[in-house]
Amino acid sequence: MKKLSPISGFSKLSKKEKIDFLKNHLVTDMDAKTLESFWHANPDLQKILDEFSENTITNFPLPMGLVPNLMINKQLYCVPMVIEESSVVAACANSAKFWLNRGGYKTEVIGTSKIGHVHFKMQTTADELNEFFHDNKDKLLNSTLPITEKMEKRGGGIRSLRLVDKTKELENYYQLELEVETCDAMGANFINSILEHIGKHFGVLLEGSQVGGRESYEVIMAILSNYTPNCIVRAQVSCSVEDLNDPSLGMSGEDFARRIKTAVDIARADTYRATTHNKGIFNGVDAVILATGNDFRAVEACGHTYAARDGVYRGLTRCDIRDGEFKFWIDLPLAVGTVGGLTKLHPLSSLALDILGNPSASRLMEIVATVGLAQNFGALRSLVTTGIQKGHMKMHLMNILNQLGAGKEECEKAKNYFEKETVSFNGVRDFIENIRED
Amino acid sequence: MKKLSPISGFSKLSKKEKIDFLKNHLVTDMDAKTLESFWHANPDLQKILDEFSENTITNFPLPMGLVPNLMINKQLYCVPMVIEESSVVAACANSAKFWLNRGGYKTEVIGTSKIGHVHFKMQTTADELNEFFHDNKDKLLNSTLPITEKMEKRGGGIRSLRLVDKTKELENYYQLELEVETCDAMGANFINSILEHIGKHFGVLLEGSQVGGRESYEVIMAILSNYTPNCIVRAQVSCSVEDLNDPSLGMSGEDFARRIKTAVDIARADTYRATTHNKGIFNGVDAVILATGNDFRAVEACGHTYAARDGVYRGLTRCDIRDGEFKFWIDLPLAVGTVGGLTKLHPLSSLALDILGNPSASRLMEIVATVGLAQNFGALRSLVTTGIQKGHMKMHLMNILNQLGAGKEECEKAKNYFEKETVSFNGVRDFIENIRED
Repeated sequence: MKKLSPISGFSKLSKKEKIDFLKNHLVTDMDAKTLESFWHANPDLQKILDEFSENTITNFPLPMGLVPNLMINKQLYCVPMVIEESSVVAACANSAKFWLNRGGYKTEVIGTSKIGHVHFKMQTTADELNEFFHDNKDKLLNSTLPITEKMEKRGGGIRSLRLVDKTKELENYYQLELEVETCDAMGANFINSILEHIGKHFGVLLEGSQVGGRESYEVIMAILSNYTPNCIVRAQVSCSVEDLNDPSLGMSGEDFARRIKTAVDIARADTYRATTHNKGIFNGVDAVILATGNDFRAVEACGHTYAARDGVYRGLTRCDIRDGEFKFWIDLPLAVGTVGGLTKLHPLSSLALDILGNPSASRLMEIVATVGLAQNFGALRSLVTTGIQKGHMKMHLMNILNQLGAGKEECEKAKNYFEKETVSFNGVRDFIENIRED
Repeated sequence: MKKLSPISGFSKLSKKEKIDFLKNHLVTDMDAKTLESFWHANPDLQKILDEFSENTITNFPLPMGLVPNLMINKQLYCVPMVIEESSVVAACANSAKFWLNRGGYKTEVIGTSKIGHVHFKMQTTADELNEFFHDNKDKLLNSTLPITEKMEKRGGGIRSLRLVDKTKELENYYQLELEVETCDAMGANFINSILEHIGKHFGVLLEGSQVGGRESYEVIMAILSNYTPNCIVRAQVSCSVEDLNDPSLGMSGEDFARRIKTAVDIARADTYRATTHNKGIFNGVDAVILATGNDFRAVEACGHTYAARDGVYRGLTRCDIRDGEFKFWIDLPLAVGTVGGLTKLHPLSSLALDILGNPSASRLMEIVATVGLAQNFGALRSLVTTGIQKGHMKMHLMNILNQLGAGKEECEKAKNYFEKETVSFNGVRDFIENIRED
């Protein structure tokens, strides 16, 4: 790598100039056409994609695939997933099929409210501040009407506002905690706008008061929380243990049920396992979140915080076997939108929502949680039966063979050979080269 | 949405047939050309992309942008980021620039070992099992040589193997815990292959022994953990509080330092804030992880588990002001690869690694953690100065204007108007329509 010098005004360069910068200073053997080859042929559409972010030079393509036959509450879905990891779509499709004839998936939205805070410091007594807050709460709420008016017409708006004394955690630290219903929008901008307003207006009200220490009121920040334990959905499957008998499992339904339950219990008992257990759930969750133009970082942060809510980081799914009945479920907090944000702006997330029948945010919560549960079932099924490597290695091998431009016959030979050998790039390359020399 | 019927053999349909299925059963008004328009013009390359996953119908494009001027350990980087959220690249670029003349970012890799487990159940006594394990540990390790041979040549391999008694957490539950060095590979396949082997071989050794309860040995699963607290990197910035004075902040360096520290302390004290604080860190982290062909679900699961390691979910960054010196840092566990997986298979992750100077996995850890820290600094800087909405709304407005096909003059007028108005899709559309009617 050449030694770089600082550059000024980079963001003001045209896309072409930014690419030239790369070529001149960083990747001298780069063919600029490589980057251009990933642009969309329609320049207006490409402009929309470019302006989702900043300093964009091209589109990074991720495979968009389909999971058919996912039955949720007796309705069949075909679910679009955007994921670069092999086996995720296939495992989800297998789990969809497995449960299709065993009653399908059932879901229930347990809550939909979101939360945000004005975080502030004030040198006062909690009692005096609390009294002032309650005397002025209505004024504070009324002052937000210009912001909340439209959302209220859609059935949303502010659900509660309370003062939280956090001075035990940090000196002079209080919160104004806002609970909000945002209907089909993820609602980040809506919540943040209310909070920034409330933070300022509470200061104005304090100024005109006699509350002790009012001049020390200092808003540190006003922002929604991505932790939404009250915006939560349950997805579950259940059937008799007997109905789990399936020739594909290589063991009895009873053994399978017991091994799945043990694997779930292990993920509740051991944090090392819980992390990977949940990672697998988010393989599916994020793939639908991405496809529908939602924000996977928000969903991840929320789900993992929830996984640690009792003081130990645990697996998110649960399993129970009682009176011959196998039950497997997940409670997943999920703040998603089906309007606003990128949902309709990205042409393919708009299409993904079409494929899902243009669901409400609540319906999307149900779909996403179901995919998460199905993904976990698929991973556990592999783990407690054949082990995870068998399927992974097959996919990995195909990727390498494609990279090497292997023909159909070469692929078949390689598949047979690597049935019992460890797959590595060099190993596969050597194998293919040997065949070609024959 | 039409009522779907279950479909068999979906994965065996051609890409065109899968798209036809969508059109015939789900999105009847869809133009199949829309999906095709996102395919890469080179069919060989498209085939590679398609086979990263299953049932693929098209590529989902995410913007790939560049953050210039990121100085890490006195070396300048231009960092590729793949992210669909506005302001992330811009905020990171601002943070890069802010610290460029204040000594830049400094990093240190604290550890690089990864971990995995054979999770098994056995009705035995911990003492007897422990004795057997220690007598047979060398045999067990030697039996892995065919798998580890190549990795050892590269300087990696098994670092430790121990028996963990987990019977307090779950009846009869033990682990064989493997610690591994995987050099520049993420190493998932490598670790899983060793573990599946060890799980089987330990059973074979037990069979030939006199250990009580040996016939009850049952491997539940053998798999790496995505929680890697010993694969960890520190990134930090520091300067004198005086040097923080910057006209762009709208406050003194002293106030700014104090408010940043308070915001960081709040994220350590309050879980609701911690979730969003860390979400912002992962905005940057994941964008580089995606760009370099790594697995963001793995990195997210690990980082959030680490955030909850002391029993409370906390913010991942720390801040200290002492003797007039401001210090801001992050310790982030990160298991990444710069060889294997998609890193070289995806043409744009391969390019992203070129742009970064083809770093080792350790160097990539340093870059990723730095971006996470820079992202957090950028978010906190907005939050404790102007508030987060100002920048967000500007970006959101531009997205909507593009969607509406607004011209340059219309954009300027809208920008001025919405300086003081709440940005919403309908509001902007009405505004543009009004202009056009004038």
